[in-house]
Amino acid sequence: MNNQPEELKNEVIYDEDSLRELLVNEDIHSFRQEYLTLHPYDRAIFYEKVDPKLRELMYFYLSPKELAEIFETSEIDEDEYKEFLEEMDATYAAEMISYMFVDNAVDVLKELDKKQVVSYLTLMDKDAAVQIKALLHYEEYTAGSIMTTEFVTVPENSTVRSAMTILRNEAPSAETIYYVFVVDDHQRLTGVVSLRDLIIADEDTLIREIMSDRIVSVSVSDDQEDVARTIQDYNFLAVPVVDFQQHILGIITVDDIIDVLDEEASDDYSKLAGVSTMDTFDKNSFSAAKKRIPWLITLIVLGMLTANLIDLFTETISQVALLAVFIPLIAGTAGNSGTQSLAVAVRGIATRDIEDESKFKLLVREAGTGLITGLVCAIFVVLLIFIWKHELVIALLVGTATLVSIFVATISGSFIPLFMHKIKVDPAVASGPFITTLNDVISIIIYLGLATAFISSL
Amino acid sequence: MNNQPEELKNEVIYDEDSLRELLVNEDIHSFRQEYLTLHPYDRAIFYEKVDPKLRELMYFYLSPKELAEIFETSEIDEDEYKEFLEEMDATYAAEMISYMFVDNAVDVLKELDKKQVVSYLTLMDKDAAVQIKALLHYEEYTAGSIMTTEFVTVPENSTVRSAMTILRNEAPSAETIYYVFVVDDHQRLTGVVSLRDLIIADEDTLIREIMSDRIVSVSVSDDQEDVARTIQDYNFLAVPVVDFQQHILGIITVDDIIDVLDEEASDDYSKLAGVSTMDTFDKNSFSAAKKRIPWLITLIVLGMLTANLIDLFTETISQVALLAVFIPLIAGTAGNSGTQSLAVAVRGIATRDIEDESKFKLLVREAGTGLITGLVCAIFVVLLIFIWKHELVIALLVGTATLVSIFVATISGSFIPLFMHKIKVDPAVASGPFITTLNDVISIIIYLGLATAFISSL
Repeated sequence: MNNQPEELKNEVIYDEDSLRELLVNEDIHSFRQEYLTLHPYDRAIFYEKVDPKLRELMYFYLSPKELAEIFETSEIDEDEYKEFLEEMDATYAAEMISYMFVDNAVDVLKELDKKQVVSYLTLMDKDAAVQIKALLHYEEYTAGSIMTTEFVTVPENSTVRSAMTILRNEAPSAETIYYVFVVDDHQRLTGVVSLRDLIIADEDTLIREIMSDRIVSVSVSDDQEDVARTIQDYNFLAVPVVDFQQHILGIITVDDIIDVLDEEASDDYSKLAGVSTMDTFDKNSFSAAKKRIPWLITLIVLGMLTANLIDLFTETISQVALLAVFIPLIAGTAGNSGTQSLAVAVRGIATRDIEDESKFKLLVREAGTGLITGLVCAIFVVLLIFIWKHELVIALLVGTATLVSIFVATISGSFIPLFMHKIKVDPAVASGPFITTLNDVISIIIYLGLATAFISSL
Repeated sequence: MNNQPEELKNEVIYDEDSLRELLVNEDIHSFRQEYLTLHPYDRAIFYEKVDPKLRELMYFYLSPKELAEIFETSEIDEDEYKEFLEEMDATYAAEMISYMFVDNAVDVLKELDKKQVVSYLTLMDKDAAVQIKALLHYEEYTAGSIMTTEFVTVPENSTVRSAMTILRNEAPSAETIYYVFVVDDHQRLTGVVSLRDLIIADEDTLIREIMSDRIVSVSVSDDQEDVARTIQDYNFLAVPVVDFQQHILGIITVDDIIDVLDEEASDDYSKLAGVSTMDTFDKNSFSAAKKRIPWLITLIVLGMLTANLIDLFTETISQVALLAVFIPLIAGTAGNSGTQSLAVAVRGIATRDIEDESKFKLLVREAGTGLITGLVCAIFVVLLIFIWKHELVIALLVGTATLVSIFVATISGSFIPLFMHKIKVDPAVASGPFITTLNDVISIIIYLGLATAFISSL
């Protein structure tokens, strides 16, 4: 079966040029008719692409509420919020923000200067401002910072019929209506009912009878990654956020969680590669270089330590220059096996696989893995070098160094990140340089140390 | 605000020991009452944890349908399916599979031997077997292979009332009822209505009037990662899968997509680290070593190439042993900057950020980044070495090698993966060793070549 041609598929969804033409011709009516039938994501793509001049026209043609839908999409990047908002009239911008779901409105405001935030909050509808302010103070990366307060609650003793009426009324403003949260008189969460259960239930049934009271909730101070894993594990569309007295404060929906997991993955990946903050491609070389240089400089400084160490052995090297030939190989192999176990550990921590594990068992297993891997690689290296150079002593030296350094690298590669995690330092960022340097130092001391000791046999 | 203590939170959800006790005492009634009120995910955790002997009791106490719910969860790993199924009576197992959502049933069967698949399909209900067979033949990693056929369709000219009736009837078996797909007489997809729209609409409205006819769909042969990005971009709960004539064949829901994105991220991450297939932690050292060794051996072979190259310069090195001191530093720095740009490119490809970019602009930008990064690092290195060793010529040699190798590494780090992507080879797996070796070779040729040329000044 063939793919649909990409062009055809896009054309079905929207025609950029004709939309642009309608704007240029200031044909408000046709533009609105065409544009507003698009999915907000496609509207956002168009909005982002056109010149600022045409966007200014759009601010006249679209209501703040209509524009809010565009800003809800993930297409508009965080670093673009500020720029776009400054194009708009301040009152219009404030009104637009007030129409967004609270969690997204907060995301937008977090990108602005304090002064701007205050002025927008002053300009907007009181109710919206109060809701936004309540969320603005939650710490970044906590459940509180990504939750929204637009959820639907019903009392325990209401009927399915009255619950459906509440739902219908709240549908236009709620972020999800597929879960209804059941609360007691003190707004404490006591159950949850899905819309699926509601529509198949008899209308006179009491909510209490069909709700599930085994509630899985997250605490407002939980880390957003834990929240994401909860939603992923339970296949939820949303999870309630509660305080320590089980009052429901907000909900977090699955679409926000996908973005959290994606960010987390990009983050771990960039850190393994030594690019500290890489969310998207950079638009210019300078900002890209600025992100990459600190890491390279750090590694150069650490590399100088290794160079210092080798420097202690220059006499040995000048006697047997062949020794120098294998230094990069040994250091490289240790580095590679260290990175492997680092990656397994970091990914295990990220996906929570590692938490059920006993640390002692893990140590035994990693030691075993290091030993097996080291032995196999060492034997291979000894054979290769002996066949190539017919120098048995050097081959054995390189082999021994390979074995020991892989062993050490494997254990340190998993234990340093676990330790970092324990002391609440992000293992992805802190472990790399430590492990690399440690491995370099150990492998070189073993290799050149042994070589110096056996120099007479070389 | 404090975190809820972890123990307390779990206790609220379920008490493992008391459940186990009920099983041991063969208290069927209480066990079922307690166990079946748990969320399937928690049921799965318990099921996985208990001894095989107790699990055997569970097969007697739970119906195949009840067990199917456990197998739907992501807690049960793919490599455990086979083991668990073999514990069960074959007819029981077949019936259980027939009760699973078709997409998940297919996932289970894909882990088994052909013979087992055939026997289970023969043992189960005909209808279920036909549905499963229809999905079994889709290629791995395509939309077809992860879609389910349990979706709800309504004819265009039905009313909201009749659509709701259809929904209520299909709710128990459909994977999602939050989207209803509208089809014409030939089962061609013509629109989509959300349950949200249905419940706020007047009951006599025609579906045609409230449906959205700007359908975003995916083709059955699309890559699962593209499907995932579509759902992520549009914030969908599900996306319809169509053939090239727009017939609806299935749907893919957001929970499956989270797992796809997670797999993809783990996959890219493992490949960057050189662990080819790392889904979860390994239970023993041998299987972990088996996964890591091929990569290490590959890198050792490539490292031997570098060693060969250095070997050409042993004469120079034996004259000026200090040269050897900086070989790991130069090769390491080139490797690090290559990995940085590789990571940016791989992640850019994965998140589709890179697709809107002109390749020429990208080349210019990467060249710029490489030049700036290389210059800064080179100056830093020259200063460090000059201060340390007071050897200006060597410092300049190392600096030049650093500059050129960072420049080459940056460009190759982004262009090799882009080229791989173009020729449909996974950039994450194929680029690493190429780039590392290329960088090593280039940096060493420059460094030792220049050193040999200027040997008289050293």
